[in-house]
Amino acid sequence: MSQKPSIPKGTRDFTPQEMANRNYIFNTIKSVFQLYGFQQIETPAMENLSTLMGKYGEEGDKLLFKILNSGDYLNNLSNEELLEKNSIRLTNKISEKGLRYDLTVPFARFVVQNRDKISFPFKRYQIQPVWRADRPQKGRYREFYQCDVDVVGSDSLLNELELIQIVDEVYRRLKINVVIKLNNRKILSGIAEIIGESDKITDITVAIDKLDKIGLEKVNEEIAAKGISQYAIDKLQPILKLSGSNKDKIEQLKSVLATSETGMKGISELETIFSLCETTQIQTQVELDLTLARGLNYYTGAIFEVKAKDVEIGSITGGGRYDNLTGVFGMPGISGVGISFGADRIYDVLNQLNLYPETSEEQTKVLFVSFGEKELLFCLPWLKTLREKGINCEIYPETAKMKKQMSYADGKNIPFTAIVGENEINENKVMLKNMKTGNQQLCNIEELIKALS
Amino acid sequence: MSQKPSIPKGTRDFTPQEMANRNYIFNTIKSVFQLYGFQQIETPAMENLSTLMGKYGEEGDKLLFKILNSGDYLNNLSNEELLEKNSIRLTNKISEKGLRYDLTVPFARFVVQNRDKISFPFKRYQIQPVWRADRPQKGRYREFYQCDVDVVGSDSLLNELELIQIVDEVYRRLKINVVIKLNNRKILSGIAEIIGESDKITDITVAIDKLDKIGLEKVNEEIAAKGISQYAIDKLQPILKLSGSNKDKIEQLKSVLATSETGMKGISELETIFSLCETTQIQTQVELDLTLARGLNYYTGAIFEVKAKDVEIGSITGGGRYDNLTGVFGMPGISGVGISFGADRIYDVLNQLNLYPETSEEQTKVLFVSFGEKELLFCLPWLKTLREKGINCEIYPETAKMKKQMSYADGKNIPFTAIVGENEINENKVMLKNMKTGNQQLCNIEELIKALS
Repeated sequence: MSQKPSIPKGTRDFTPQEMANRNYIFNTIKSVFQLYGFQQIETPAMENLSTLMGKYGEEGDKLLFKILNSGDYLNNLSNEELLEKNSIRLTNKISEKGLRYDLTVPFARFVVQNRDKISFPFKRYQIQPVWRADRPQKGRYREFYQCDVDVVGSDSLLNELELIQIVDEVYRRLKINVVIKLNNRKILSGIAEIIGESDKITDITVAIDKLDKIGLEKVNEEIAAKGISQYAIDKLQPILKLSGSNKDKIEQLKSVLATSETGMKGISELETIFSLCETTQIQTQVELDLTLARGLNYYTGAIFEVKAKDVEIGSITGGGRYDNLTGVFGMPGISGVGISFGADRIYDVLNQLNLYPETSEEQTKVLFVSFGEKELLFCLPWLKTLREKGINCEIYPETAKMKKQMSYADGKNIPFTAIVGENEINENKVMLKNMKTGNQQLCNIEELIKALS
Repeated sequence: MSQKPSIPKGTRDFTPQEMANRNYIFNTIKSVFQLYGFQQIETPAMENLSTLMGKYGEEGDKLLFKILNSGDYLNNLSNEELLEKNSIRLTNKISEKGLRYDLTVPFARFVVQNRDKISFPFKRYQIQPVWRADRPQKGRYREFYQCDVDVVGSDSLLNELELIQIVDEVYRRLKINVVIKLNNRKILSGIAEIIGESDKITDITVAIDKLDKIGLEKVNEEIAAKGISQYAIDKLQPILKLSGSNKDKIEQLKSVLATSETGMKGISELETIFSLCETTQIQTQVELDLTLARGLNYYTGAIFEVKAKDVEIGSITGGGRYDNLTGVFGMPGISGVGISFGADRIYDVLNQLNLYPETSEEQTKVLFVSFGEKELLFCLPWLKTLREKGINCEIYPETAKMKKQMSYADGKNIPFTAIVGENEINENKVMLKNMKTGNQQLCNIEELIKALS
């Protein structure tokens, strides 16, 4: 009665090699977060649907994985409710929980619910999987990890600087060349104001967010389709075509936005951030990019996006400042700023560029290879001593041919073997073999420890 | 339109302090697993219900969290199917996926599905949450972590030894006093054989598993109720009352089980394991306990259970050898042995005994306290230098009163503050304050690095 095993589409198993690579990414990101005083939290995989619904738009509601209520969930339903065959309406009656869709909404819920337990400004990071019932395709999964880092309860621009420093440090450590793109929502609001279309700010930003992807012409068409006047579209053109250095762009913007208080505030924020980047000698290129709107209309200040230079892939990190994330849960007026590292895209970039370190601290350093019970027993105290020194080691647990044991070492990418036969036992030594060079060396325990440390 | 936020019953948020404590446990366990050459894998939170159903008994099937199919899931249902109002039958039609219930079944599925990618013997560990729709109560959650470590593809008793060594090392590092209880399923089978009730082996082991909890009398009643003869029950009594040292018990068992080949095989396995424990100087008490059956009838050899000595709590680690875990997925005859660390119970034990280390490597070492923009800017290069040295540090990002900044440091349990005012800037120094002793010391950058390293 056996069954051919499979996993749900859009989900993945991670083998030891894949896990080692993923842990390299997560550990790098975590240690940088900690360097800046961010602390980890975790929230449950399941949230109440009342927490999740309505936060990601109508499309998002559909993409939530919903959990069927336990027990006899049909018990209280009328025949009419059932025969209606309205899946959406029935869902409300047979499901109360869903899997988290991102880390932002659970974080907002967490802050409000645990406000008495945390110190503000609250610097938190969170690395957990999220689930979306999206159509799976290359690079898009139904279960994937997000790595979010946020400060809430402080509107100081030092926080924006820190996030840029974190990006700079993480990608230097991962050896990925990136450019950090920076914009400010207040500048976008200023632009909408100046061209006389303040109430269309969302339509405008959503459209110009696509400038890179669909080009100027299509963006103009899309804006026009939203009912924006030709006058406004004409006025928008020089802004969309802005060029030169960051300083140049800022100077041009200053003259265009001179009469918009909001716009000038955005420019001043940008200038402060650029100046702080200079003070702290940020090595990554930081570039003002007005086309950056990130399609999310809860941003209110800085907007960030990070792109890898050597790989064709979407943004690998992004975020921004928001002023009212916790309002929907009853705690208005808390300003925060945060970014999210796309672990799965970073994983794809590192795979493509083959940027993983050759050895991992997690892996076995040496495999003991032996040929009988006597040899096995001889090895046990050696293994014990190595482990006391913190050296990861193992012994092939069965009596097996040399070739089989060696190929086990290769399969696990173990760099050394310690071979034990009759002679070695007589001399109370092991034959240490470097699996890469093939070099062999007879070692006593001290020599072995030294060679492996 | 604000809502009071909450989370589903039986689930938990983890605050930074709780996460630091949990990470201490997970990191300790992980580093010991790695010391013995075990490698990490991960499997998806969602599995196909066909993988999960029928593996945990009828009760287990009910406790699975099931995911509602996406889209218009009612579309293909007939009126009859709906009006039947049979929740269990309808579930099969509107749900194809469930959340994993343990790590064992997904692991078996993983081994079969990825057999070509892994080297056998396969030593894996897995640390992930599992979900059960159990009634929540003190110490029992609907989402909790399991930490499983298994070797499959080797029947060498060295693997049993390694698991004992791992238990010994993990609990020494965590400073929890434990006793390791050991039994062997073959001995239980031998007993059933000798008393003439081989076909009732499951009933007998399930009942005697409860000896500790309900006492001898109730166990006898329970066995009798299963239809086991009085003759057999009488014959069972001396075995249940077995006492003395491990050696004594083994000697008594040898005479009782002399005619059972299976029973004698179990005794011989036990003797080998005890002898290996002596060779490797296991410090934890390892005790033969015949009442240990763990109620799981897939065990075929060694059975382990670990109890904390200083806290009233159930077993905190347990496992055993199984010979056919992967058979149900089409890969029969693979022997394996594994144990599972109950992270949430260990967490409760450490909380009760207050055994957490005072400081964590993850936490901020020093908070810069300053009183204006000039001071903030002065601090930035200092922070940068400390971070280059790998020292976790942060600056209070707002201009705020000394008291507020100090209480922020206290709230985050930060051991040092570096105070910067006019005088410090003039001298190019900071005033380092030890938050515990109150001692202050004026430092230049080199002195600061030295004090914090």
